[in-house]
Amino acid sequence: MFDAASAYQNLRQRFREVSWLKSSSAILGWDQETYMPSGASDFRADQLSFLDGQAHRLGTAPEIGGWIKACEDHEFPDGSVELTNVKGWRRNYDREVKLPTDFVEELTRATSTGTHLWAEARKKSDFALFQPHLEKLMELQRRKADYWGWQACRYDALLDAYEPGARSAEISALFDEVGPQISALVGPATEKSRQTPEDLLKGHYPVAAQQAFNREVAEAFGFDFGAGRIDATNHPFCTSLGPKDIRLTTRYDEADFLSSLYGVLHECGHGLYEQGLSAEEWLLPAGEAVSLGIHESQSRLWENHVGGSTAFWEHWMPRAVHHFPHLAGLKPEDMAAAARRVSPSFIRVEADEVTYDLHIILRFTLERRIINGELAVKDIPAAWNELFEKLLGLKVPDAARGCLQDIHWSCGLVGYFATYTLGNLNASQLMHRARQDDAGLDAALAAGNYAPLLSWLREKVHRHGQRYLPQDLMRHATGHATQASHHLAHLRSKYL
Amino acid sequence: MFDAASAYQNLRQRFREVSWLKSSSAILGWDQETYMPSGASDFRADQLSFLDGQAHRLGTAPEIGGWIKACEDHEFPDGSVELTNVKGWRRNYDREVKLPTDFVEELTRATSTGTHLWAEARKKSDFALFQPHLEKLMELQRRKADYWGWQACRYDALLDAYEPGARSAEISALFDEVGPQISALVGPATEKSRQTPEDLLKGHYPVAAQQAFNREVAEAFGFDFGAGRIDATNHPFCTSLGPKDIRLTTRYDEADFLSSLYGVLHECGHGLYEQGLSAEEWLLPAGEAVSLGIHESQSRLWENHVGGSTAFWEHWMPRAVHHFPHLAGLKPEDMAAAARRVSPSFIRVEADEVTYDLHIILRFTLERRIINGELAVKDIPAAWNELFEKLLGLKVPDAARGCLQDIHWSCGLVGYFATYTLGNLNASQLMHRARQDDAGLDAALAAGNYAPLLSWLREKVHRHGQRYLPQDLMRHATGHATQASHHLAHLRSKYL
Repeated sequence: MFDAASAYQNLRQRFREVSWLKSSSAILGWDQETYMPSGASDFRADQLSFLDGQAHRLGTAPEIGGWIKACEDHEFPDGSVELTNVKGWRRNYDREVKLPTDFVEELTRATSTGTHLWAEARKKSDFALFQPHLEKLMELQRRKADYWGWQACRYDALLDAYEPGARSAEISALFDEVGPQISALVGPATEKSRQTPEDLLKGHYPVAAQQAFNREVAEAFGFDFGAGRIDATNHPFCTSLGPKDIRLTTRYDEADFLSSLYGVLHECGHGLYEQGLSAEEWLLPAGEAVSLGIHESQSRLWENHVGGSTAFWEHWMPRAVHHFPHLAGLKPEDMAAAARRVSPSFIRVEADEVTYDLHIILRFTLERRIINGELAVKDIPAAWNELFEKLLGLKVPDAARGCLQDIHWSCGLVGYFATYTLGNLNASQLMHRARQDDAGLDAALAAGNYAPLLSWLREKVHRHGQRYLPQDLMRHATGHATQASHHLAHLRSKYL
Repeated sequence: MFDAASAYQNLRQRFREVSWLKSSSAILGWDQETYMPSGASDFRADQLSFLDGQAHRLGTAPEIGGWIKACEDHEFPDGSVELTNVKGWRRNYDREVKLPTDFVEELTRATSTGTHLWAEARKKSDFALFQPHLEKLMELQRRKADYWGWQACRYDALLDAYEPGARSAEISALFDEVGPQISALVGPATEKSRQTPEDLLKGHYPVAAQQAFNREVAEAFGFDFGAGRIDATNHPFCTSLGPKDIRLTTRYDEADFLSSLYGVLHECGHGLYEQGLSAEEWLLPAGEAVSLGIHESQSRLWENHVGGSTAFWEHWMPRAVHHFPHLAGLKPEDMAAAARRVSPSFIRVEADEVTYDLHIILRFTLERRIINGELAVKDIPAAWNELFEKLLGLKVPDAARGCLQDIHWSCGLVGYFATYTLGNLNASQLMHRARQDDAGLDAALAAGNYAPLLSWLREKVHRHGQRYLPQDLMRHATGHATQASHHLAHLRSKYL
């Protein structure tokens, strides 16, 4: 038996240790993507696997169960940091210890093989090469869901790992509302964006000038460069290496400065959330982001609602011209229009804001049916292509541009895709509410003053860590659980 | 009881784990000096302290003693990787476990306080501020030596930690031979270098051009950029993050490209040694550098013997002019002369190649007397100033430019300084022998072909790891233990 105070201190110390190991891993991972020499990859894999194993071992030791129980018996006050942490620890601990060690090892091996086979299959655009292994991977996902336990539907168990408390029936209802309305929007929005010449921004954009401009904007948004930085990688990301060490990355194309700029604004949104979490409780549940769907709302809000507006370009045009003098003849509306181009395409990561959610809805629909046993893996290509044509009006030419394009399933990320669209819906809903709460918000944004918006997000979202479940956080911040209407209104107003 | 084979495998696995932790620490340390945002330092200290503690705990666990004993009883063959590892593990393990835990904690606290007090005292140039604490630090060093054990003299125990097998009586004999002869050389060498105008290389040297030139030279020396890189830091260093991940740093002064160049050539020498160690046994004794005195010989050899020669500039002048066009009018001899300037000064880290060893001899002499109880800490300033004037002919104006200039004593590095001069002596002796072994060596170096020299060093030094004690390595490579004569001959031929 433990008294709750000492059990809590034991837990806090233990998970601080886990956070030191995990954040050390994160530093090694960041370095691997940014600066590591190519020859170092094998040894780096050994280092990472050891650190991750140590973190797992420390975080799942049997004594932890007793400590959590002692804390639960104590009943810390509602809304307290202690209760938030204890609930989070319980959630994570149960999730970890419910999986038998030999199952975790099998899963690790299967996903490691899976990513290699998938890469090979994608290269050859040959689904048959990947199919037998994908069957095994999906079977393992089903077993994982069963170990974790579920009520209404097996898929919910997987979803819950990325979006705590989410239920696929609810998400499905939202997506059923969103999908057809977005599909209907694609044609007119595409038509409208044809009015902007494709070569409008043609020119040379030196990397150094892009870096300077991106940094100016990120700094204006409120990103603290004393507690973060921006580097270059092949795939943009945001990673947290410590409470005052949030790193963004982007990639540079000297023919297209919008690509690195909007990459930075997106990752900056993630970074502002991370910089707004409690430093004291960092990487403990009270100081950790609540879900992927909320995290993505922050990146999409700064990227699309703030950065994608005409008001943004009205403010930033002079600075853009300062860094890229050949833009001098253009108007802010031109910039906004160029950033707002809509064109249905096959690849999710290249999709525009309007069509993006259709790519997600397709994946959510299929993987839910696979996990729930309503769709066989062998039938994925046909189902994919049929639904793609229905949603986006395009015939998928091959598996590489169809069901083999994403790495997610091969590395065990099933239940993850839905959070991208939840992020878009949440972003629109949060932005709508922020405008209601602060009548001066748009004037401030137009003046390049982002502090009022950031303060609102800090107050309503960032500072809470995992105090609320995601949908409770949305209710608390906006008065409602996630709704479709605000995002549909946003898309219509921005694109039509 | 264990059989030797499984005991050896246990040890190997255990120390591989220690190497993953230590190299993860090294990555965090490298990041801290290169890219980490300023706000992250407190959390980084927590991460590092945790990783270092874990590595120490793993590497000193009681079961290790039994495994080592089982391996020793087995008697692995002379010269085998196994024997090298077992001997090294024994050496390190004994050193670690002989220190009681409360003593280690006291030492850690005292050196942590020590570096703060020292920085304060140096800033105010006030030795009295540091004296009481330095007395404590030196007393702790004496106790450490007693825990470790010693025969002829207490100071030997400390020396041995950096230079295994070294005895202060032998080093003292070498330094007694070297000191007066170098002192006699300073005047004429200073006089000679006055013939080269101080503003000979005056001009602007953009960082990007320095980086490009430094990289070309390091690549030509044989540094593998697929297994290493160069970044910028305030203080140049070389760090090993993995067997194929050796990182150098330098600092850039746009008024003086020689500073970053010779910084890179020095660290490149360290890096070539690290890249030449066994990847298979990396960070195990068979794949680890043998001593600081041998490590420094590699850096000084490439910096001073190769990079400091007129032949170097005869080959590289066209490339230097390519990167820095305003050098076009100069001759290779001018460049070599500018890089060879001698001028006695107070600060060790700014000293030229000729006077550098006099700074070291002074420190070695004083710290040996302190540890052996022949000099009181309160008498250090007077002793320092007197010996400095005798060796370098200058009156020390204040403690900041005298006995307070180095961080070493404050952070517990006693017995370390001698290895710098051992490195210089070893470098000259190795270079002398390499020339004897390969009559075409100088012609190759003059043609910018560094492969024969690197092969010789790989064969004679790098590949052995800790197979031999440093002096046995020198005998094996050159036929003799470290001698003074080759270095004195090198200095006379280069500077007179």
